[in-house]
Amino acid sequence: MRNFNENTITDAVLDRITDAGQPRIRQISEALVRHLYAFVREVRPTQREWEQGIEFLTRTGHMCDDKRQEFILLSDTLGVSMLVDAINHGAEDGVTDTTVLGPFFVQSAPEKKLGEDISGGMEGNPMIVTGSVSTPDGKPIANATIDVWHSDDDGYYDVQQLDKIGDLAMRARFHADAEGRFRFWSIKPAAYPIPHDGPVGDMLTAQGRHPWRPAHVHFMISAPGFEQLVTHVFVAGDKYLDSDVVFGVKDTLIREFVRKDAGEAPDGRMQNTPYYHLNYDFGLKPDANKAHAV
Amino acid sequence: MRNFNENTITDAVLDRITDAGQPRIRQISEALVRHLYAFVREVRPTQREWEQGIEFLTRTGHMCDDKRQEFILLSDTLGVSMLVDAINHGAEDGVTDTTVLGPFFVQSAPEKKLGEDISGGMEGNPMIVTGSVSTPDGKPIANATIDVWHSDDDGYYDVQQLDKIGDLAMRARFHADAEGRFRFWSIKPAAYPIPHDGPVGDMLTAQGRHPWRPAHVHFMISAPGFEQLVTHVFVAGDKYLDSDVVFGVKDTLIREFVRKDAGEAPDGRMQNTPYYHLNYDFGLKPDANKAHAV
Repeated sequence: MRNFNENTITDAVLDRITDAGQPRIRQISEALVRHLYAFVREVRPTQREWEQGIEFLTRTGHMCDDKRQEFILLSDTLGVSMLVDAINHGAEDGVTDTTVLGPFFVQSAPEKKLGEDISGGMEGNPMIVTGSVSTPDGKPIANATIDVWHSDDDGYYDVQQLDKIGDLAMRARFHADAEGRFRFWSIKPAAYPIPHDGPVGDMLTAQGRHPWRPAHVHFMISAPGFEQLVTHVFVAGDKYLDSDVVFGVKDTLIREFVRKDAGEAPDGRMQNTPYYHLNYDFGLKPDANKAHAV
Repeated sequence: MRNFNENTITDAVLDRITDAGQPRIRQISEALVRHLYAFVREVRPTQREWEQGIEFLTRTGHMCDDKRQEFILLSDTLGVSMLVDAINHGAEDGVTDTTVLGPFFVQSAPEKKLGEDISGGMEGNPMIVTGSVSTPDGKPIANATIDVWHSDDDGYYDVQQLDKIGDLAMRARFHADAEGRFRFWSIKPAAYPIPHDGPVGDMLTAQGRHPWRPAHVHFMISAPGFEQLVTHVFVAGDKYLDSDVVFGVKDTLIREFVRKDAGEAPDGRMQNTPYYHLNYDFGLKPDANKAHAV
């Protein structure tokens, strides 16, 4: 266990981790060493480049706090989050596609009644969202829990401007009705750049990339007996659909946010200005590990 | 640029970084994506395991401050630091082998005169270190700058116990004499565990590894016209020589720290207790980028 050169060190390090208690830890550690070394051998970093790598990781760690998760941003912008998503959620008939959670989810969003306006008085274009939650073969899932959150008309989330707006907004938790249907009002979201004043922003600049995500509404939908669905619905026509900085767009998740004239809205409300209408019908995947509740 | 699956996302992400301004940034980014994805595809992490990875990196970043560099520890314990060292410093006749810098180097060590005792009064076994600095073909390098630092008899460095000892100790900067020779007194260093109360320590535990390094004296030697040499000399017979947690041991860097009875020491000093003697003759590599100074 001495005198390693750039080729023999791999086996030396792999030998050292054969005593890992859990097989999964050993498997992950071995794969990490092999692939990390293959990367280093290909790139052949100078001592100074290695130092720059250490500095980049350190800055990324120091940027993380209870309001910002720079390592998730790094994973998202390198496409790793979507790769992990793809590995864990293949496309299936009748099941809505998944995409990244993103950094703006809040655990305890305010509970709202179906049909309520969740815009919190933010300025923007009124939008009604309607839809349903069902099994892959179309049976309604009554009372499904639906978390929604989205950006304002300038592309900012509530949690990025709590100083200014004082409270959570454009964010709520609903429960679908007995037919698995839901509806709520808010304002139409805008495209936005991910936070790019840190190391991840520096990386994007160095890679010649913009930091923008196309406009979307986030959904997290749960019901007993089904896998939790984490996804967005994207606004059709957005100019960043083909260059989402986190690689999150799937065609099945793009919908027309249809512009409507003033008049009676789909929920029967009389709307005296023009508004947008998004409808999306979600399909949940039965959880193989749990009893089916429907 | 949509609808990626776990195989097509690689090319999508690689496409996105073709506008990187500097070819080297593009090269490193492309290699990172390919090897990182190969790792993720092999390991197939669950969403929860991905979260645990994010948490590990975040904790590692939060552990870094001006006294501790947990990402360097991570690189060292995964063998990456020695791999980068091997890539940058191949073995050459007459040139001393390199090893890791380690986390305890201090930029401005106290300047000392040849022959001085640098132990700072720390308790331990007296040790005299002698040696020389020369070119690969044995010509002395007069006035070479020699930084040395090592642990105490319990395995702790001065910077780990400044509260207790008040000042730097077992650490100094010397200049070789006209014949390239040097000598100093200190105490014999002990083996020690790397700091293992953080995420890297948790990783070692999970991998079934101990955190120990065999006893050694650090040397950093510089002279105009030569590449800076960063290395250690290890104590022959140490029980951790074959399992150094950072993979830093090379046979050429192991020396007998010879036990001597009280009497006249190699520098002519009358030593009235037993002591240890280490001698090491270093060879520096001419710097191809600079004029040769000898």
